[in-house]
Amino acid sequence: MLDNLKKYKVVLASNSPRRKELLSGLGIDYVIKTLPDIDESYPEHLSEEEIPAHIAVNKANAYKDIMADDELLITADTIVWKDGEVLGKPEDREDAMQMLRKLSGKKHLVITGVCLATTKWQKHFTATTEVTFAVLSDDEIAYYVDHYKPMDKAGAYGVQEWIGYVGVESIIGSFYNVMGLPIQRLYGELRALD
Amino acid sequence: MLDNLKKYKVVLASNSPRRKELLSGLGIDYVIKTLPDIDESYPEHLSEEEIPAHIAVNKANAYKDIMADDELLITADTIVWKDGEVLGKPEDREDAMQMLRKLSGKKHLVITGVCLATTKWQKHFTATTEVTFAVLSDDEIAYYVDHYKPMDKAGAYGVQEWIGYVGVESIIGSFYNVMGLPIQRLYGELRALD
Repeated sequence: MLDNLKKYKVVLASNSPRRKELLSGLGIDYVIKTLPDIDESYPEHLSEEEIPAHIAVNKANAYKDIMADDELLITADTIVWKDGEVLGKPEDREDAMQMLRKLSGKKHLVITGVCLATTKWQKHFTATTEVTFAVLSDDEIAYYVDHYKPMDKAGAYGVQEWIGYVGVESIIGSFYNVMGLPIQRLYGELRALD
Repeated sequence: MLDNLKKYKVVLASNSPRRKELLSGLGIDYVIKTLPDIDESYPEHLSEEEIPAHIAVNKANAYKDIMADDELLITADTIVWKDGEVLGKPEDREDAMQMLRKLSGKKHLVITGVCLATTKWQKHFTATTEVTFAVLSDDEIAYYVDHYKPMDKAGAYGVQEWIGYVGVESIIGSFYNVMGLPIQRLYGELRALD
């Protein structure tokens, strides 16, 4: 499948183990290339769907000068959106606890922006999943934060970890999007390339 | 967490690698015990939710004579429900192809019945997830069936395999239920035990 990609050298611009696992699951060959210090800021007026799209496009733009003509670059950014604000990566243990208290017993959105780029063209799309958390006790939140240290995770949780097992009551949308890459949508976009 | 289970010896009555992975993810100790030739038939008049519950309870009943007083048994059965019928495990390659053609581009339900039992009491519950498949080409269906041989899977697919990545557009409900065990609901039931 995806034989149309054979003319490209696919490059994933992410060190996320979840994104690697998902892209590998498509059965295509790719390499990882990451750049340090990419700007992840965004203008204040953007909507919740425009934010991760903007960041994914910015990530792709950072590669412009170093891309070869046969490369197909995939960049992505995932945000957690709750009550009109982005929950980013927690700063410390207390911040992580506080984020999970906000998510407990409530719904939030996980939105991923993905950008595909070559030296000749660029396109992007977003995918949104609604996640409903069960009510979590402070004991459960502390157990998760202390055992899994989710400091590298937007919203302070990984759906594929203990907290996802005990805390995620239901979702509407793509599960793999919550892991960090809307792989079914990405597959469709890749399959449609010339 | 789940310290209330320490007085039990937890027994999982399943050889499914997905169910083992999910139960292990709760961080509890358990052993596997399976019995051969458990009756998986059910009366015709049952609703789609009653069918897997009936089978899970029947599985639990099969253990009655061999259970120790300190054992807590977990049995489960998962069905795929499409257009008023159960899609079971495919009989052969052509049957698997045919099932996936039925699921392609459509919605179906995945329903798991779970039974918890000791020598003194028994309770059961069900969880339902709606799954929407993208339109799959015959090439994609053949690729999946030939590479992943889903003959041991109800509905001829595993959501955690290639077909889940490229074919599952969205779900409503628990993702882990589609893998074979509604782990968040099970955690809640286990936590509530004396």
